Amino acid sequence: MQPRIPVPTIRRLPGYLRLLREAAASRMDFISGTYLANELNLEPIQVRKDLAITGVAGKPRTGFAVRELINAIESLLGWSNTHDAFLAGVGSLGIALMGYGGFREYGLEIVAGFDIDKNKIGKTFHGKKVFAMEKLADLVQRLGICTCILTVPASAAQAVTDRLIAAGIIGIWNFTPAKLQTPDNVIVEKVDLAASLAVLSSKLQARQAKLI
Amino acid sequence: MQPRIPVPTIRRLPGYLRLLREAAASRMDFISGTYLANELNLEPIQVRKDLAITGVAGKPRTGFAVRELINAIESLLGWSNTHDAFLAGVGSLGIALMGYGGFREYGLEIVAGFDIDKNKIGKTFHGKKVFAMEKLADLVQRLGICTCILTVPASAAQAVTDRLIAAGIIGIWNFTPAKLQTPDNVIVEKVDLAASLAVLSSKLQARQAKLI
Repeated sequence: MQPRIPVPTIRRLPGYLRLLREAAASRMDFISGTYLANELNLEPIQVRKDLAITGVAGKPRTGFAVRELINAIESLLGWSNTHDAFLAGVGSLGIALMGYGGFREYGLEIVAGFDIDKNKIGKTFHGKKVFAMEKLADLVQRLGICTCILTVPASAAQAVTDRLIAAGIIGIWNFTPAKLQTPDNVIVEKVDLAASLAVLSSKLQARQAKLI
Repeated sequence: MQPRIPVPTIRRLPGYLRLLREAAASRMDFISGTYLANELNLEPIQVRKDLAITGVAGKPRTGFAVRELINAIESLLGWSNTHDAFLAGVGSLGIALMGYGGFREYGLEIVAGFDIDKNKIGKTFHGKKVFAMEKLADLVQRLGICTCILTVPASAAQAVTDRLIAAGIIGIWNFTPAKLQTPDNVIVEKVDLAASLAVLSSKLQARQAKLI
């Protein structure tokens, strides 16, 4: 049984992983906690605490074994193997994400899209086919997929979420601004672009008001 | 001078704005705080507190004047007019965001991309031209643009940020996993997709470990 990892630590793990992969690519066998701290603008004590959770111990002077630490972090995150995911809502953002290959690096591959729009069903975007929402439950079962990226309009988000859960999806990466109601056993992680842009805009607005 | 608005309130404003715009489109003149609270899964007291910040007072029974509240929120966020922004780093994610029209709804329009790759400079993606990084300072001045979306590789993020700031950019929407060091007068807002996916993956991983 794994110990419970604090969310801030989990959010920092991809940063360590990126530097470790770079080190491995440059054939480095060991990496120091101080180097990781400097590169990521973190306190060295923070890095040591975070990495202690992986169970890999750093050695004095030599540091952490790069390959061992990569394996430990990938295994903690479930990124050792690429996981397939569906995407619901093949609109502008959905198509953009279907075309973004970068998630593969983080163990996620979008294999198909789902939509209710007859003009999109059957079409292929960036090599990924779009299916009717009615096919979802069947494909979830057949392909054993448990993760879905949600990029439907906010007004449809809850209804589509209910369908995803009924079909067997247990992990939802929610790119809509909607706050979803889900059973306890379903995991929802939100990326709220509108909220993030609101923070940036309002701060810029306040700054410019000060300058005028 | 505007009062300082708490960040959690700012992050909720786009949600209110979306429902208000929907109400306006359905020719509703007034909207109740309770309706907004229900639709957004928020407590009614939270909605009242958030909206008090706009200066628009709700009336007992009738609720809030839709058009007035839209104007107040748009003005707080600086979304009354569309703001132009640049994008630095025309890779897979950069191109995806250039093709995503949804930011327009939030007052943001990407007008051009910048890259160091000779194969991309001069090309057009989704109707937006890519310029060499050397052109940045000149175009920032000429077009009076102060916001840039950052989608370069993490390893280049700090160096490009330094160039953006030197060129006159004061608002950076950071889509890289890098933690940027910037002067106090520069506003950085981060969307860390890798960190968000790490949280989702590790929770799913833990859940599946429990089931086996």
